[in-house]
Amino acid sequence: MNKFYLDIIETGGTIAFGLSGAFMAMEKRLDPFGVIIITFVTAIGGGTVRDMLIGKTPVTWLQDNSTALIILGTAIAALLFGKYLKQLSKTMFFFDSLGLGLFTVVGIEKGQEAGLSSLICIALGTTTGCFGGVLRDVLLNNIPLIFRKEIYASACIAGGILYFGLLQTGILVEYITTITIVFIVLIRVFAVRYKISLPASYNK
Amino acid sequence: MNKFYLDIIETGGTIAFGLSGAFMAMEKRLDPFGVIIITFVTAIGGGTVRDMLIGKTPVTWLQDNSTALIILGTAIAALLFGKYLKQLSKTMFFFDSLGLGLFTVVGIEKGQEAGLSSLICIALGTTTGCFGGVLRDVLLNNIPLIFRKEIYASACIAGGILYFGLLQTGILVEYITTITIVFIVLIRVFAVRYKISLPASYNK
Amino acid sequence: MNKFYLDIIETGGTIAFGLSGAFMAMEKRLDPFGVIIITFVTAIGGGTVRDMLIGKTPVTWLQDNSTALIILGTAIAALLFGKYLKQLSKTMFFFDSLGLGLFTVVGIEKGQEAGLSSLICIALGTTTGCFGGVLRDVLLNNIPLIFRKEIYASACIAGGILYFGLLQTGILVEYITTITIVFIVLIRVFAVRYKISLPASYNK
Repeated sequence: MNKFYLDIIETGGTIAFGLSGAFMAMEKRLDPFGVIIITFVTAIGGGTVRDMLIGKTPVTWLQDNSTALIILGTAIAALLFGKYLKQLSKTMFFFDSLGLGLFTVVGIEKGQEAGLSSLICIALGTTTGCFGGVLRDVLLNNIPLIFRKEIYASACIAGGILYFGLLQTGILVEYITTITIVFIVLIRVFAVRYKISLPASYNK
Repeated sequence: MNKFYLDIIETGGTIAFGLSGAFMAMEKRLDPFGVIIITFVTAIGGGTVRDMLIGKTPVTWLQDNSTALIILGTAIAALLFGKYLKQLSKTMFFFDSLGLGLFTVVGIEKGQEAGLSSLICIALGTTTGCFGGVLRDVLLNNIPLIFRKEIYASACIAGGILYFGLLQTGILVEYITTITIVFIVLIRVFAVRYKISLPASYNK
Repeated sequence: MNKFYLDIIETGGTIAFGLSGAFMAMEKRLDPFGVIIITFVTAIGGGTVRDMLIGKTPVTWLQDNSTALIILGTAIAALLFGKYLKQLSKTMFFFDSLGLGLFTVVGIEKGQEAGLSSLICIALGTTTGCFGGVLRDVLLNNIPLIFRKEIYASACIAGGILYFGLLQTGILVEYITTITIVFIVLIRVFAVRYKISLPASYNK
């Protein structure tokens, strides 16, 4: 996939993830600094946990200013223009889904670079896609949303299985990456449009 | 200690720790994916925090599939057969105690390999034994159980002190390991049978 | 700055941070072991997260016994003499502020040693100063205090900006360190004396 498009999607995903944190922090009426922290944690949490598990340190977002500046800008925009940004919820949902797909694939590929097995790579991809939201919810004192609602982590896992399935066929990795991202986005779109979610577990 | 017995105890401990997470997640009515995540975090949380503190990365469970598959199987079994497994609560308690003993000793020995002091090794052993449960409770939005109930971490600490005491005597490390594990199991059994717990602290 | 003074301030900061954890744990009526854990996490949490992000492992407090012993003593003192220690709240506030200033500067300097940018160093300094309190609040099932109350993290950020501003002037680093710490302490003192805090954010 073209580096330029990848950068746009990653930036869009970071912004969408960050905004979901900023809005939730504002609903809990945190002060502006609290909003900035939650924006940060939501946007970089998944990749940070992944990097610390693998031992790839300093973790990615420490290595240059661009991610930090994008997130800072996102938080400030949410604080100033929250009302207007919320009207863009469809755009946000689109980028959030794209971000989820891209972050999952990035996590899988970092796992492969570290020489880990397919199963573990899928776990790392899911961690990258989902743990930012988990940390956001823990800091805001909620049970993580992804444990309770909608197909979310399940989309990462399904995408990961597809990725390694396609890898067996000898298709170029660039294509596999694209197909996996599109697949994850489509699962999300269908799940949200048709309100599909996993049933709650019972302790019969 | 015989490698084969160690493997059985470690597997039993992982399953028992995982089940405690799965059952608590099901009580909170998480969806199946949430149950799987909580099962994972409870079973590998302590060792993961320990490995990240020492810098032994990629952390242990990333390095092959066996731990991940055991935990996945545990979560699925809990989801399907929860009602029946709960009737095995005595077996579960036995493995949970054995797991606590073994995980504590593993943590101590990893600390020694990293050249750390006895005091710090005891802290790492306690972390290995207890932090899976702490993370489980944080994710499920409870104050960690071990801070409030029963002799649990205290058993790890007492075991750790015994371990280093015996080390002074020149007894073979294999024997010390076994004695420490048995000692931790016995403390747990007595504490639970006689409902012994530490008193709550007051802020007079 | 003189090594001896630095050691006194760092020890004082560790004790003050630890006590804030111990008191809050006692208010929640944890058992003594729970109080010790929360004391530990509050005192070393910020530096531990920083070290794990940078990959400087084993993390600092593992490398010798002194920090662990100081914190253990702090927790035991809180449990035994809580009533009397609370009367020292002004002394505690002074050390807490000094600790915040010192921990921030230590975080900045560790970031520089790792070759990271100024912006990222300020983020690491703020993490070092504040994340112990964040982890304390997460474990005790509260929304972190610093997201809701008083100028706290803001003081770290302002101090970090001053630090790098002064670095441009060619002043000796020893002086810059001292000035930054004093500046952070003064911000805290003014904020608390005049009850200055950031306004809550609204999601208009």
